[in-house]
Amino acid sequence: MTTDFGTRDWFVGTMKGVVLGIHPRAAVVDLTHEIPPGDIRAGAFALMAGYRFFPKGTVHVAVVDPGVGGPRRAIAVQTADYVFVGPDNGVLSWALARERIKTVRRIEAGKYFLKPVSRTFHGRDIFAPVAAHLSRGLSIQRLGRGVDDWVRLSWPQPTRSRGMVRGEIIYLDRFGNAITNVESEPELNEQAVTCEVAGRRKARCALAEFYGAVPGNRPVAVMGSSGFLEIAVNGDSAARRFGLKTGDAVVLRMRIP
Amino acid sequence: MTTDFGTRDWFVGTMKGVVLGIHPRAAVVDLTHEIPPGDIRAGAFALMAGYRFFPKGTVHVAVVDPGVGGPRRAIAVQTADYVFVGPDNGVLSWALARERIKTVRRIEAGKYFLKPVSRTFHGRDIFAPVAAHLSRGLSIQRLGRGVDDWVRLSWPQPTRSRGMVRGEIIYLDRFGNAITNVESEPELNEQAVTCEVAGRRKARCALAEFYGAVPGNRPVAVMGSSGFLEIAVNGDSAARRFGLKTGDAVVLRMRIP
Amino acid sequence: MTTDFGTRDWFVGTMKGVVLGIHPRAAVVDLTHEIPPGDIRAGAFALMAGYRFFPKGTVHVAVVDPGVGGPRRAIAVQTADYVFVGPDNGVLSWALARERIKTVRRIEAGKYFLKPVSRTFHGRDIFAPVAAHLSRGLSIQRLGRGVDDWVRLSWPQPTRSRGMVRGEIIYLDRFGNAITNVESEPELNEQAVTCEVAGRRKARCALAEFYGAVPGNRPVAVMGSSGFLEIAVNGDSAARRFGLKTGDAVVLRMRIP
Repeated sequence: MTTDFGTRDWFVGTMKGVVLGIHPRAAVVDLTHEIPPGDIRAGAFALMAGYRFFPKGTVHVAVVDPGVGGPRRAIAVQTADYVFVGPDNGVLSWALARERIKTVRRIEAGKYFLKPVSRTFHGRDIFAPVAAHLSRGLSIQRLGRGVDDWVRLSWPQPTRSRGMVRGEIIYLDRFGNAITNVESEPELNEQAVTCEVAGRRKARCALAEFYGAVPGNRPVAVMGSSGFLEIAVNGDSAARRFGLKTGDAVVLRMRIP
Repeated sequence: MTTDFGTRDWFVGTMKGVVLGIHPRAAVVDLTHEIPPGDIRAGAFALMAGYRFFPKGTVHVAVVDPGVGGPRRAIAVQTADYVFVGPDNGVLSWALARERIKTVRRIEAGKYFLKPVSRTFHGRDIFAPVAAHLSRGLSIQRLGRGVDDWVRLSWPQPTRSRGMVRGEIIYLDRFGNAITNVESEPELNEQAVTCEVAGRRKARCALAEFYGAVPGNRPVAVMGSSGFLEIAVNGDSAARRFGLKTGDAVVLRMRIP
Repeated sequence: MTTDFGTRDWFVGTMKGVVLGIHPRAAVVDLTHEIPPGDIRAGAFALMAGYRFFPKGTVHVAVVDPGVGGPRRAIAVQTADYVFVGPDNGVLSWALARERIKTVRRIEAGKYFLKPVSRTFHGRDIFAPVAAHLSRGLSIQRLGRGVDDWVRLSWPQPTRSRGMVRGEIIYLDRFGNAITNVESEPELNEQAVTCEVAGRRKARCALAEFYGAVPGNRPVAVMGSSGFLEIAVNGDSAARRFGLKTGDAVVLRMRIP
């Protein structure tokens, strides 16, 4: 489960109660519930970064759903290895872009919903029960019609030119590491790279293999565990130190040998 | 489990360890652990809002227990569909008011406790092990004597007069939605209703069916997923925007047709 | 699982996904993930305070790992009742000091790791999968060579003189209770004890059996549920009231009868 519901209210707990009422032996795992309220892109990134570490057959439910109750559709997606369930607002789309999609269905079959369906909490009334039924073996075709035009979020592609890559910060994690949209590639692993990032203050650092490869309190760029370049500070928060936020520009320069 | 223990210390984890030591196959689910420390009414509201979405037979453990170690009693309650376990300070009472109660028992039978019993953490030493035994099938009668005078929290009833309902804010959720004590009723669902709420700033809005039924950043009143009227702002926090807190007055006016 | 990964990102979720991929029926329980980033001593204390409430045979994974990717070793420890897995930086050591140790092994056998192993997230790539294999019955000897010189954190022993014990604050919990390094002992349970603690403001209080044994808003010292003396304020946060922090001195005086 990936949501923006937080854990201070009863919202996530009731979703789990609904799942267990339908599938008592389900293993329900939180990816995170601390997506900033309504931040579809942050939810999409967290799901993309985390989904593939779950066993094949896992049903991923992602609910960041500011349009709940309105005309936005609900979808379920069967890929080669997983099932994804959520609102059709793009929150699933970055994960789906990495998967081999078999079918995308609208969620329309009300008999799998919790009744009465509220207009403000489809996580509990639609997505949780549908996911529970799917995890018990319900065929995804039963949920509704096929969909071709599901919503894809744009992905900010880094631009590359001779000896230079320009990207941006796409996610700030709990440690204050700034994850960028620059993916790992052999060229970048040669370490002859410097990285510049400009938040409220400018940082310049080398690419290294792990945070502790530079002295304490020094900035460093690493290829992070999710497959993206991260700007970090050894033992401190890069986000706080340099005043970084999502969208800030990152420039990598390969040193000419 | 519903508690004010938070998740930053080891308290909830040890409760779960104790449960699994007694009932290894138990599915332990968090409703929330972020009830403000000692806020019995917030705990009672969260439990009332969430408990009924769990499967029949669920044992609900609610520990908001500022009087731990003192003379307050511990109780277990069998209702038609659930078992409730917690301190007898009212935290269970709003949920119990909606249930058909079969028996209320004092928790006295020390053989089901974790020894030695601390004076400061009955969640771990009394409530968790008792709940685990009950979930394994222990008869509630074994726990102790029947109780008639368990503590009921007062519920702030809205007052109704011709064309008007006066209520108050009873809970502020993670999104900044202000949940009131006004329950759904047919009269209110006709939408010919305006709502006024006065925090540090005054808000006036119409009743609608879902948050997105009004333009972005506009206030709206909806019948929320827990069955109570909520004051919200589409895409923002009503609590922050209008400086709302629990106890603030809410007035609904039916428009005379 | 005890970590400093927090719950706002996908880190803990992916650790659980990895565990369930190897051991689908594992019961994965959070002790806490809110250890302050990189605070090995806080992690060691939380683990020590909580581990023994879990069933025998539990595999405890503790990852507070500022040196991830560098030369620090990874270890697994079999004790009489539990298995412990984590980086060899001392985070396991206060729990281990209370256990009968059977063997300590380096974690070297790469075939139990998730591939490719990142340089920044061994929680997901090494500790989670190794713990899952151990929980399924893998012999700890298979992981690697024995270790004698694993890292022990120093424990700040209180000093005792006639009628006086000098200790310090070692952990501040969610309620603002200040847990000290002074352990329960018969002499201290006689209650003829006053306690002084000096944060930004000085507090003086008697030892009592539970928080509510003093009037509301008054300080009190209690023998807490983890076996250590705590400074608390009935109904409030002692940490905030007296400006306490870890390392602050605590002095107990036995009253001469």
